[in-house]
Amino acid sequence: MRFFSDNAATVHPRILAAMTAADTLDTAYDGDRWSKALDARLSDLFGTAVEALWVPTGTAANCLALAALCPSYGGVLCHRDAHVQNDEGGAPEFYTAGAKLLLCDGEGAKLTPATIRSVADAIADDVHRVQPHALTITNATEYGLVYTPDEVAAIGELARERGWGFHMDGARFANAVARVGCSAADVTWRAGVDALSFGFVKNGAMSAEALVFFKPGLADATRRRRKRAGLLLSKGRYLAAQVLAMIEDDLWLANGRAANAGAAMLADAAGDRLVHAVQANELFLRATPAEAAALRAQGFDFYDWAEGEVRFVTAWDTDRGAVARLADAIRGL
Amino acid sequence: MRFFSDNAATVHPRILAAMTAADTLDTAYDGDRWSKALDARLSDLFGTAVEALWVPTGTAANCLALAALCPSYGGVLCHRDAHVQNDEGGAPEFYTAGAKLLLCDGEGAKLTPATIRSVADAIADDVHRVQPHALTITNATEYGLVYTPDEVAAIGELARERGWGFHMDGARFANAVARVGCSAADVTWRAGVDALSFGFVKNGAMSAEALVFFKPGLADATRRRRKRAGLLLSKGRYLAAQVLAMIEDDLWLANGRAANAGAAMLADAAGDRLVHAVQANELFLRATPAEAAALRAQGFDFYDWAEGEVRFVTAWDTDRGAVARLADAIRGL
Amino acid sequence: MRFFSDNAATVHPRILAAMTAADTLDTAYDGDRWSKALDARLSDLFGTAVEALWVPTGTAANCLALAALCPSYGGVLCHRDAHVQNDEGGAPEFYTAGAKLLLCDGEGAKLTPATIRSVADAIADDVHRVQPHALTITNATEYGLVYTPDEVAAIGELARERGWGFHMDGARFANAVARVGCSAADVTWRAGVDALSFGFVKNGAMSAEALVFFKPGLADATRRRRKRAGLLLSKGRYLAAQVLAMIEDDLWLANGRAANAGAAMLADAAGDRLVHAVQANELFLRATPAEAAALRAQGFDFYDWAEGEVRFVTAWDTDRGAVARLADAIRGL
Amino acid sequence: MRFFSDNAATVHPRILAAMTAADTLDTAYDGDRWSKALDARLSDLFGTAVEALWVPTGTAANCLALAALCPSYGGVLCHRDAHVQNDEGGAPEFYTAGAKLLLCDGEGAKLTPATIRSVADAIADDVHRVQPHALTITNATEYGLVYTPDEVAAIGELARERGWGFHMDGARFANAVARVGCSAADVTWRAGVDALSFGFVKNGAMSAEALVFFKPGLADATRRRRKRAGLLLSKGRYLAAQVLAMIEDDLWLANGRAANAGAAMLADAAGDRLVHAVQANELFLRATPAEAAALRAQGFDFYDWAEGEVRFVTAWDTDRGAVARLADAIRGL
Repeated sequence: MRFFSDNAATVHPRILAAMTAADTLDTAYDGDRWSKALDARLSDLFGTAVEALWVPTGTAANCLALAALCPSYGGVLCHRDAHVQNDEGGAPEFYTAGAKLLLCDGEGAKLTPATIRSVADAIADDVHRVQPHALTITNATEYGLVYTPDEVAAIGELARERGWGFHMDGARFANAVARVGCSAADVTWRAGVDALSFGFVKNGAMSAEALVFFKPGLADATRRRRKRAGLLLSKGRYLAAQVLAMIEDDLWLANGRAANAGAAMLADAAGDRLVHAVQANELFLRATPAEAAALRAQGFDFYDWAEGEVRFVTAWDTDRGAVARLADAIRGL
Repeated sequence: MRFFSDNAATVHPRILAAMTAADTLDTAYDGDRWSKALDARLSDLFGTAVEALWVPTGTAANCLALAALCPSYGGVLCHRDAHVQNDEGGAPEFYTAGAKLLLCDGEGAKLTPATIRSVADAIADDVHRVQPHALTITNATEYGLVYTPDEVAAIGELARERGWGFHMDGARFANAVARVGCSAADVTWRAGVDALSFGFVKNGAMSAEALVFFKPGLADATRRRRKRAGLLLSKGRYLAAQVLAMIEDDLWLANGRAANAGAAMLADAAGDRLVHAVQANELFLRATPAEAAALRAQGFDFYDWAEGEVRFVTAWDTDRGAVARLADAIRGL
Repeated sequence: MRFFSDNAATVHPRILAAMTAADTLDTAYDGDRWSKALDARLSDLFGTAVEALWVPTGTAANCLALAALCPSYGGVLCHRDAHVQNDEGGAPEFYTAGAKLLLCDGEGAKLTPATIRSVADAIADDVHRVQPHALTITNATEYGLVYTPDEVAAIGELARERGWGFHMDGARFANAVARVGCSAADVTWRAGVDALSFGFVKNGAMSAEALVFFKPGLADATRRRRKRAGLLLSKGRYLAAQVLAMIEDDLWLANGRAANAGAAMLADAAGDRLVHAVQANELFLRATPAEAAALRAQGFDFYDWAEGEVRFVTAWDTDRGAVARLADAIRGL
Repeated sequence: MRFFSDNAATVHPRILAAMTAADTLDTAYDGDRWSKALDARLSDLFGTAVEALWVPTGTAANCLALAALCPSYGGVLCHRDAHVQNDEGGAPEFYTAGAKLLLCDGEGAKLTPATIRSVADAIADDVHRVQPHALTITNATEYGLVYTPDEVAAIGELARERGWGFHMDGARFANAVARVGCSAADVTWRAGVDALSFGFVKNGAMSAEALVFFKPGLADATRRRRKRAGLLLSKGRYLAAQVLAMIEDDLWLANGRAANAGAAMLADAAGDRLVHAVQANELFLRATPAEAAALRAQGFDFYDWAEGEVRFVTAWDTDRGAVARLADAIRGL
């Protein structure tokens, strides 16, 4: 019974079916009919003209976005617990040719205009200090919190005032939107977001994320950077087909809701043990080593997050029976 | 009837089956049982201890290898028509943080010790000139020629003398080995090759190549670079499964032979029109624009390579009937 | 009466004389007799065989050293107030091709094995986290504190255990050594330091610092990086001559002592206002805006460091009369 | 009697005097009164509003300019014998984060619209090929040829049509302008040049070149890149003073003329031995090894350029007596 990460979940049958359907001779790279449909289909979804590229990983999506928004001599404001800072092996620095991440604080890895300003305003505007050029937030955050459209818009307004590019790492965008119940548009471009890493791999896809540009003029250079990074798979149709299948009939939202529902059941069971509110599909619980061992002895697999703290993640395919048993086990600690 | 590129071919059923078989919950990234089997299985194939990483593209394999073999301030000797120079959008420079490609000549994109020496020996050994640190050859070459083990060994000996890392771009390694009839070992590590981009995508895989290190000590840093480049897919098992399936029962060789056989049939038909000998699965033919148009009118799709020159590529799945019809059409020009 | 920075001080007459003496035709770059003497003269000074390169700035010295000690995918441990982190405009990231600075704490910008360990030990050893490969300390620190040889050796021992390269930013090395009264060797290579940015520009030189490698094997690649960074002046003899003149008869130490003496006089006057102990040539004082204005009204120029805090820096050429007057003025606040 | 390179010449007395005059306490970096005067003084010289930065080397000037004009994923068209390609140790790749130099042909290292077009037009406009974004020419060229304003304007027109940035490496700009007798404006911005590396070090300065931007909007980012590259000397006034002194009363032109005059005397003597026309201060002569040895035996120092070819360079300070003796010696071969 794996609650280790949604990263390792299985692939949704509709995704596998779409990939099989794409197994026909077509043009290489992104010249095929599936890849060519991305812009239109994602423009429909977001209710505005967007440009969208498939990429094989979330790290690639995030870092291509940052490279589009920040010059090599600039800085990217982010939370100090952000995935780009801690979990991408230095990929932001690689893709931007050495931009510096400027680390902000905030409960549950959530940024606010105030915590961003306190970092940015302390940076003297001279050539000795790296200046902020872009800002990235993660939604849902690394601790499973979500942003409302208003919260994003407040940050977007700050970014607009300062001339910063604004990126959203949406590795768990589906879980966030499913939770808030807003439209995908409200929490992105209508709130000032320039680029979104629209995550699918944690949500039932196999190997495709979409990098969505709301701001015009960024996609062309990004297509070149994608090739230059060795990310332009020659049989791109198998990635594009995944994205299209995730969008069709809102499979992404349905999967996000399913994962959230499992987490909500566990949250009820966890009660006072919760370190953060459970708003998406991740739970962080206080647990002693003995308690963790007890859960493992019952067959549950999960992540030792920090001393006295464990993490459980649910996914689109998490078995409800396993959730119920884990909920019982947590209650029984 | 597509002879445009093997890049766009379909996926072999055994590959699809292997991917479906991998669709079970397992550890993320490369911690799964398929990824963990790569070193052993490829060590068996090559008859020596190797370290092997899956990557989603040949460009990624090539450029990770070059980054492992050449410092940022160094140079990489290659043919002036090499894929790394002309078709990777500057990826070698990106991955190496700015190493310079040092361009050599040679018939049919084949290098020889003499053509390499003529470039390397002209470079004064001072800090003003970028010094060679690595060497890369493509086998089969960009014009469909193959290297014998002896030819590779002569280059490998030069590399050893000079202290250069030696990489082989094996995007069409299967076609080369199938043609020469040697072992995979003879034409690689036994001939001095340090790293091989072992290509599968042009040969029936969907999205996985293997980067094989024969020289110890390079794989660990490369694993970090792979992550840092956004190439570490979280569901790596679907890539590893492709590599394993290609290796099993020498599917890679069978597919390479099938592609070569089609090209050989076409070569017989092309006769004097051939610009290069046909040794693998690519044909370069002299054809006037009118002749090219006549072939297209009969339903054949192919690449206008240069003025008065067209390129045909066969693949593992190229229909024999289509080959026969194209052979007839070429004879009929 | 400028106490703004030692950066802007005048050039010592012996330096100007040495530069004039070098104004004769000689070989370009670093082939001249002055440049060629650096290794030997600095080896004498340090009592061990070193390799030394002149560079025109401290930032260049620091970042060439970091590039020699840390791969692009690695991290460099440093204090969060270090010059490399805050005052070099992202140069460490540029020179290392994107290594990440890993920020440690410590009073007065001083690191200890404990504060370093607390950062390093929290980094999981996997490809998702950037791993420490090097460590840099500043001596004297950015807040004017100095390290004893024992303190450096304790850090050096940690670096040795972990396999990290160890760099010392010695922009104010003269002030530190002058204060501690140790040998230059005791506080560097004997304490485990691999590379030293030996600063002269704040100490009476015009445009030359020395990058000194104690660890063999790093200088050759660094000479290439120096050229590649556009730092190899064609008339290098004018830089080498500065370094040699600073070393001769320990001019560097005499100048460091002179600057320290001025700061000591001011420290006596400042008493409880001091934010940090005054061990070198920098003073950080608590002062209200009104007090700062009062000092400025008396003709003193200095830096508003932070809210309620001002910085004074003395230099080799700071006028003793001005120091006495400033001391009086501080007492009179 | 050194004719090896103008790189190693002495410093003009007016430069040394200007540096001594700048030896007074002032603001660090480029905040001093000399640095602040650069824009105005160079705007006067060029008859248009320019922005100008001092840098310590020509390589730095060239590569900062290329970084301002070409993104990392782009290419820079240049002659295959250009200094940026052959003599800067990979600095263009370092500063641009991996842009590719696209090599063109042309007699005597001179480019023409035709030779540029033949390279650019062969590059397919897709993501697999690095696209040209900038163009750089050297004036005087590496073989001592000069461009007329019309020749530059023809190239500038091509650059404008294609949207390429246009840089001129003017390491020997003084020699070129002195020869052609045009204004500095005619051969630069009036001919479409966006940025000029205005060389002084080969022409009597010690350690300062000027990077001049004619196109607005490039200088600010370049000031950041200059700092980030460790090129922002803290005592910038000593560099700015050199630039100002070179400009004053057209010292740069007088020095250029003096160097050219020496070369012209030698060219008369060399006659049929000349490999290239002598238009500036460099001569390339056919000479057998025995002839070269004979000249060396008479005390002349020079460069063995290629087999059977030697190079002589005159400078502002080349002794006329030595020139006369060399002319005689060449005639006597």
